[in-house]
Amino acid sequence: MTTIKNDLFLRALRGETVSRPPVWMMRQAGRYLPEFMAIREKYDFFTRCQTPELAAEITVQPIRRYGMDAAILFSDILVVPQAMNIPFEMKPGVGPFLQNPIRTAEQVEKTPVPDVHETLGYVMDAIKLTKQMLEDEIPLIGFAGSPWTVFCYCVQGQGSKSFDRAKEFCFTQPEAAHMLLQKITDTTISYLKAKVEAGVNAVQIFDSWGGMLSPVDFREFSWRYMEQIINALHDQVPVIAFAKGCWFALEEMANSNVSALGVDWTISPKLAREFTGGKVTLQGNMDPSRLLSPPKTIKKMVRDMIGEFGKDKYVVNLGHGILPNIPVDHARAFIEAVKEYEA
Amino acid sequence: MTTIKNDLFLRALRGETVSRPPVWMMRQAGRYLPEFMAIREKYDFFTRCQTPELAAEITVQPIRRYGMDAAILFSDILVVPQAMNIPFEMKPGVGPFLQNPIRTAEQVEKTPVPDVHETLGYVMDAIKLTKQMLEDEIPLIGFAGSPWTVFCYCVQGQGSKSFDRAKEFCFTQPEAAHMLLQKITDTTISYLKAKVEAGVNAVQIFDSWGGMLSPVDFREFSWRYMEQIINALHDQVPVIAFAKGCWFALEEMANSNVSALGVDWTISPKLAREFTGGKVTLQGNMDPSRLLSPPKTIKKMVRDMIGEFGKDKYVVNLGHGILPNIPVDHARAFIEAVKEYEA
Repeated sequence: MTTIKNDLFLRALRGETVSRPPVWMMRQAGRYLPEFMAIREKYDFFTRCQTPELAAEITVQPIRRYGMDAAILFSDILVVPQAMNIPFEMKPGVGPFLQNPIRTAEQVEKTPVPDVHETLGYVMDAIKLTKQMLEDEIPLIGFAGSPWTVFCYCVQGQGSKSFDRAKEFCFTQPEAAHMLLQKITDTTISYLKAKVEAGVNAVQIFDSWGGMLSPVDFREFSWRYMEQIINALHDQVPVIAFAKGCWFALEEMANSNVSALGVDWTISPKLAREFTGGKVTLQGNMDPSRLLSPPKTIKKMVRDMIGEFGKDKYVVNLGHGILPNIPVDHARAFIEAVKEYEA
Repeated sequence: MTTIKNDLFLRALRGETVSRPPVWMMRQAGRYLPEFMAIREKYDFFTRCQTPELAAEITVQPIRRYGMDAAILFSDILVVPQAMNIPFEMKPGVGPFLQNPIRTAEQVEKTPVPDVHETLGYVMDAIKLTKQMLEDEIPLIGFAGSPWTVFCYCVQGQGSKSFDRAKEFCFTQPEAAHMLLQKITDTTISYLKAKVEAGVNAVQIFDSWGGMLSPVDFREFSWRYMEQIINALHDQVPVIAFAKGCWFALEEMANSNVSALGVDWTISPKLAREFTGGKVTLQGNMDPSRLLSPPKTIKKMVRDMIGEFGKDKYVVNLGHGILPNIPVDHARAFIEAVKEYEA
């Protein structure tokens, strides 16, 4: 086991006292970066995900430019259903698209739980390569979608405002829905364990669509599966759970084996601390659109945010992924404000 | 002043003790109804809004079929910017669309606060006609979008997942943004006052996009304008404010002059009562997708929901508009469960 030189992020996840909080940004390897756009012009989405050299290069791009305290492996949550023989394509103007969405128990039964080393080996190769490039300067985060969020795409067949077809499947065929959720969960657990073996230092589970469920339905269709993943992984690496819009479940989530919970910008830092009772590290939560403000405003907001969350048990981040139209200097102001922070 | 025969809804808004809570459904005059679809095939969107006979007929359709305890005038939140010379069109596959979105202070300055009797007289005619058709059996609700929500469409120019252009306008040109919000507010106040004169018995303000803002930004860009409207109207009719996703502001909103607050399904009835401290009537909050469940399940959920909110100071409703793909018998189960309720 090697030692990470800048271990602020890992220490914050363990709840240790730090001189300043660590910082990274969700979707930090993304379209707001000119160097990412240069790669994007040459290679399509799945090529970027499936070519270890490209995924590794994209992962380290923002680190070179800004020096965040953690890198996150460039990939996509839909590589998991891909590995399960659910063939998503990227449709221009639509996004992820599935020709034959899953709508019947028969389809669920036929869906395999694959050997992830066989089907997702390219991700492990990308991790090894990225670790070499990072030279143990900072930790590397691996991620996966929550089973509910992956399920939403598999059943709806594409993005949606309400994911009503996914919900309909749950509400009218609950047994089949749970069978599919369990298969996604089993695949995700193997996948994240393989990522840890390959070298990631922490994992984050993204539940993008849990906030579309009522508290009761969230518990049944999302959280119980996220918790299985957390319980399977937490002995090996710190686990961060980010369930966007799920303020209502923070209390219950804080009582699990997670190291940290991501929060979005609709909850005040004070209330987020109250709901989680100081039990876990919190990560977030600036409105990504706020990076459109002048850099001076951004810096002030970051300082205020650290003041409100407190510098310990805290990871500075946005409340969701950075937007494509953010000027690079505004992203820099966000990172710099944290590095300049003095308690 | 005439007396409404079934005044359950108005009594619930006043906080009086009732034998059972009243029920209506947001977007109850909508695409899930075959009789609405028949009209929709013949007349386009703005014709339906602007022809008093059509708007009145559409308004009473769901009442005839199900006998809700309140009707809500068929219209659209975009009739207000239309009246302000902001010419929205309905673009197939896109929805509301504005050729030249508002992005500069100059555009805001040129935007008029119109005489609503002149520009929106057709709405008042529709109200008078609907009142005749309802024969004072049940109350009629008039509505408007919140200034923030209307602003979102005017600046973004169309629907959006993040309304990032609308937010950018606020964060980079706050003075111009506030000027536009104030103009929308002034127009909306005159508009709702005219609706009350024409005969509506209550008004509801819909803030569909307030939940995209942080608590601090919500106060600055949405709530302060909603509150102006509430203060201008509450002496004349009960005012309901529904700010979707704005659980974080319920406490502050409950301290205003509203009669009732709408809540969506991401908050439990218990917590909604806690946040609002029993000060106001609550309205909501079943997940509209839950109407896809079998009718038996729907009825049980409605009974449980009434049990959790309590029968008084409560208006049974969905947590957002009914979806187009809800079977008519499922909508019936929702309404019937309330009517069959015995404390």
